[in-house]
Amino acid sequence: MLVGISGRYQIDWGKKMRVALDAMGSDNNPIPDVEGGVLAARESGSTLLFVGDEQAIRSELKKHKTTGLNLEIVPASQAITMTDIPSIAAKEKGDSSMHVGMRLVKDGLADAFMTAGNTGVAYATAMLYTLKRIPGVKRPALSVIFKIANQPVIFLDMGANADSKAEWLVQFAIMGQIYAEKSLGLSNPRVGLLSNGEEAEKGTQAVRDAGEILQHLSINFVGNVEPKEVLSGRADVVVSDGFTGNILLKTFEASTRYLSRIIRDEITGGVFSSLGGLLIRPAMKRVKKKIDTDEIGGAPLLGVDGVVIIGHGSSDAYAVKNAIHQAHCAVQGKIIEAIRDGLQKAANEENVIALQAGGII
Amino acid sequence: MLVGISGRYQIDWGKKMRVALDAMGSDNNPIPDVEGGVLAARESGSTLLFVGDEQAIRSELKKHKTTGLNLEIVPASQAITMTDIPSIAAKEKGDSSMHVGMRLVKDGLADAFMTAGNTGVAYATAMLYTLKRIPGVKRPALSVIFKIANQPVIFLDMGANADSKAEWLVQFAIMGQIYAEKSLGLSNPRVGLLSNGEEAEKGTQAVRDAGEILQHLSINFVGNVEPKEVLSGRADVVVSDGFTGNILLKTFEASTRYLSRIIRDEITGGVFSSLGGLLIRPAMKRVKKKIDTDEIGGAPLLGVDGVVIIGHGSSDAYAVKNAIHQAHCAVQGKIIEAIRDGLQKAANEENVIALQAGGII
Repeated sequence: MLVGISGRYQIDWGKKMRVALDAMGSDNNPIPDVEGGVLAARESGSTLLFVGDEQAIRSELKKHKTTGLNLEIVPASQAITMTDIPSIAAKEKGDSSMHVGMRLVKDGLADAFMTAGNTGVAYATAMLYTLKRIPGVKRPALSVIFKIANQPVIFLDMGANADSKAEWLVQFAIMGQIYAEKSLGLSNPRVGLLSNGEEAEKGTQAVRDAGEILQHLSINFVGNVEPKEVLSGRADVVVSDGFTGNILLKTFEASTRYLSRIIRDEITGGVFSSLGGLLIRPAMKRVKKKIDTDEIGGAPLLGVDGVVIIGHGSSDAYAVKNAIHQAHCAVQGKIIEAIRDGLQKAANEENVIALQAGGII
Repeated sequence: MLVGISGRYQIDWGKKMRVALDAMGSDNNPIPDVEGGVLAARESGSTLLFVGDEQAIRSELKKHKTTGLNLEIVPASQAITMTDIPSIAAKEKGDSSMHVGMRLVKDGLADAFMTAGNTGVAYATAMLYTLKRIPGVKRPALSVIFKIANQPVIFLDMGANADSKAEWLVQFAIMGQIYAEKSLGLSNPRVGLLSNGEEAEKGTQAVRDAGEILQHLSINFVGNVEPKEVLSGRADVVVSDGFTGNILLKTFEASTRYLSRIIRDEITGGVFSSLGGLLIRPAMKRVKKKIDTDEIGGAPLLGVDGVVIIGHGSSDAYAVKNAIHQAHCAVQGKIIEAIRDGLQKAANEENVIALQAGGII
């Protein structure tokens, strides 16, 4: 059932399904979105439902060979932009391609929805107006998936919940663990709490309280992880509040760019080093590829009652295709049901612990 | 009065003073500590008070030319280790070199104290048992100073206060701004709040509330800064809670190490790239030096009632010397008085704003 992590190599799509795709999502929409959908339809045999401006989608589709593919167009009169404010756009753009695409999932007309559009608007549209939360979920979380040491690592929350309570962090941990197992295909994934020290007493009050609960649940909780441990792959699931998670992500991106800039400046500063720079250019290209995330291309919005995969705004057609592959993995892993059951199980375990602590059982 | 930022070049020490030095501080104590003190005494003409194990200090001093230097030894029977737990060691090691050194400042026998020892213990010893807080300070902050684009940038809090209230963040901003101006010699330093977006509505509740207050104070507040802006030098003072600040710092360190490792692996993977790697080696050494912090060597513990400079545990003698230079800058910038006055001024400004908001004036 598990189909593993996608890439530019031949990937296993598993069973055919219906995926709604936001044609108006990426920065260069609808070009990479439509091409990515066509590629995915060709490789998977699945039905792709392109949601958005019908004329634009039609004229984009003409550029590709689509004979024999299962493609449908679902018109939506509005589009979300990257500068749209989530609370406002989610509420007022009721016929946006995001809104319409998520409704298809809600109504059972599609198995999953993929967008490379505005993450905040996707979050608000899903949570408040269309799919709503899986019963039992306190707050859905945004995730990103990186490859570290050739293994996928899922990070959540990456920005939806700046101030996160301990009980939300616990749910992020459970949802991330389920996604890692059911969709990324990792067995017994290790769950770590991002903190400023390995010791259990390190971290904010919320982190310390969450750690206390997590160590009693039947998940593979490896305790607090510092950034250096995150980057050496000590955990498969890295949990944090949305503020710190977003700072971690942005600091990683900014640091690698900062270091690359310094290296380039120093290398181009002399004759020998410039020659050396030419010789290492292919190696540096491989480095850049290793750091880029497009091999994964998309990560789930976890906790909403339907499979939603969000890709980078800068996605190219391959990244869109890979995000659609993620959607296939999530649907086949039955993650919605698994999250519902997993949260229920954890709540039961917490109840047992509370009763034991109270001396009742 | 301002003597600028120190380095391995000739530095301006300003007036002579008395600096207490923790001889038992660094990972390799007392070797780099004592040598750094000797170097500083020679360059500055100041009096260095070596605090710690008298025998160990004496035998270490014999390795150096000390004729004509103003050196004193102040015995302390206990030493702090890197594994000491702050709350316990600060309380129970009343004759530690940190405790004794800070007492010298408290009693007016030294103008400043420098240690490359356990930061947490230094914080607790200063705040709870020796120097205590400057009147008006809610929480002292740990800082670090990086050079970004050849300019010093001070970051605080870096780990002392995991959960920080908005009013603490405001005080960190004021203390950092005063240190940047009076001790680092920056004119009208730009103060930024670390956040996950530039917009004022981004961030935790504490960040948003602090931003609201800071924009009304008479400091050069540039608003929220994201990690990429921090690393492009958009602010001279970067303010955050201790948890996020520590994660930022550790993610930066981990990311640069991660990238360096990937680059090394890729470069050594082929003949041409290996040759290229040899040719760029001097350039890469300059890159490493740029990222290292020992040109700054030490950062202040801000908010305690006396000048305390904390260096890396891994400090060599140059880093210790530079940290002692930081102490000179801080004393000559009269930062303790400046912080006391600055916080008072800010409190008055906040009162005026509150009265105006209430329609009273």
